[in-house]
Amino acid sequence: MTDRSPLPPCIVLVRPQLGENIGAVARAMLNFRLTDLRLVDPRDGWPNPAAGPTAAGADAVLDGARVFGTLADAVADCVRVYATTVRGRGMTKLVATPDHAASEAHRLAASGGRTALVFGPERAGLETDDVALADAILTIPVNPDFGSINLAQAVIVIVYEWHRQLTAGLPRQVLHGGSDLPASHAALEGLIGQLEDALEPRGYFFPAHRTRTLKRVLRNLFSRPGFNEQEVRTLRGIISTLTSPRDR
Amino acid sequence: MTDRSPLPPCIVLVRPQLGENIGAVARAMLNFRLTDLRLVDPRDGWPNPAAGPTAAGADAVLDGARVFGTLADAVADCVRVYATTVRGRGMTKLVATPDHAASEAHRLAASGGRTALVFGPERAGLETDDVALADAILTIPVNPDFGSINLAQAVIVIVYEWHRQLTAGLPRQVLHGGSDLPASHAALEGLIGQLEDALEPRGYFFPAHRTRTLKRVLRNLFSRPGFNEQEVRTLRGIISTLTSPRDR
Repeated sequence: MTDRSPLPPCIVLVRPQLGENIGAVARAMLNFRLTDLRLVDPRDGWPNPAAGPTAAGADAVLDGARVFGTLADAVADCVRVYATTVRGRGMTKLVATPDHAASEAHRLAASGGRTALVFGPERAGLETDDVALADAILTIPVNPDFGSINLAQAVIVIVYEWHRQLTAGLPRQVLHGGSDLPASHAALEGLIGQLEDALEPRGYFFPAHRTRTLKRVLRNLFSRPGFNEQEVRTLRGIISTLTSPRDR
Repeated sequence: MTDRSPLPPCIVLVRPQLGENIGAVARAMLNFRLTDLRLVDPRDGWPNPAAGPTAAGADAVLDGARVFGTLADAVADCVRVYATTVRGRGMTKLVATPDHAASEAHRLAASGGRTALVFGPERAGLETDDVALADAILTIPVNPDFGSINLAQAVIVIVYEWHRQLTAGLPRQVLHGGSDLPASHAALEGLIGQLEDALEPRGYFFPAHRTRTLKRVLRNLFSRPGFNEQEVRTLRGIISTLTSPRDR
């Protein structure tokens, strides 16, 4: 897998309340290969034993977490700071989608700049002064009639998006458990020939003036899926079986 | 917002164990405008009072949930069934990313076909027979060294992806709290002119052979952000203030 981003973003939790949520954030991060967790003034101090169980094995992220007294200190080395909020704050700020913020993070990382993704306390979200410190607001577009995402869910959506773009060059669909390579056309012709030979005497290509059309339908039907050699062999076996006498 | 998808996908939970997780799934769905929840043989029956609190207000999704005896019944009206798994199952199946599955769901919906997104029980995931019934496998690409996503997190990532594509035509970045429209060039020229007039007598454009370069730097600096009229007025006010005598 290509690592397009030498400087992955850091996740900054401002005054997080519950250790359980810090653990769930660590778990979400590590699923998508992020490890740089920064805590600003966590309510219950740090380390917090409540974080371990919900991290579900992402202990390395918790162990590496750094604590800062202020948001400004936490993001001092970052060139772009996104404040995650669910709504605008009556201030003039760019509001980016996760899609846009992730592509900016990758772009800046390619030039050596780190991005911070900042999340507020569970109950109230970021305070206006925290948002003012950010370069832009990051908002997950949700149902205007029902926007209710908790901290770890917001983190997982945003880090998923970052990771999606990291791996965007990879195939979006692969065939598991078999060759991804379609069968040769010779093998496909063999299948279609066998099928036609089996159908012909059974009156399938009737009436005669429709034969050509029916054969074309058949050919398209078996060409389109891109069956691999094994699948073609299986299909030929099926045809053979179907055309064999019922009682042996 | 354009509704590109007249037939949004349904979410199918096969033998879900904890009501809390069913509620969390309903909440994740409604955030991204999905409401069609189907339960196959839920362990603790249905309705399940444990689901309410974690739904966090997504009660309409729970109230509308339908229960089926088998997965085949649950997806009978669907033209494409994705089985969500964390790994291949030793069978020949296409394995799609959320990105691909979502685009397929939108494409099929445009032709009137519904897609089912199927999730297995929390502990063990889908059984092989459930997966065999699906048209393809849906796998969230995660860190190969740490893949640990719970049920509601898997659902939220996948439905976020569907919603991201639904709203893909919308702007990815907007300016809140002010006009998105950059100021006219006349206004910008006024600002730059004022600034130059203020800097000139203060020796900023020195030495003389660098004047042109320095002015170009200045022009680029104030053109690039695309300030709106209000921002230009604010900047002009700042310049005026800075150049006014210290004591009035």
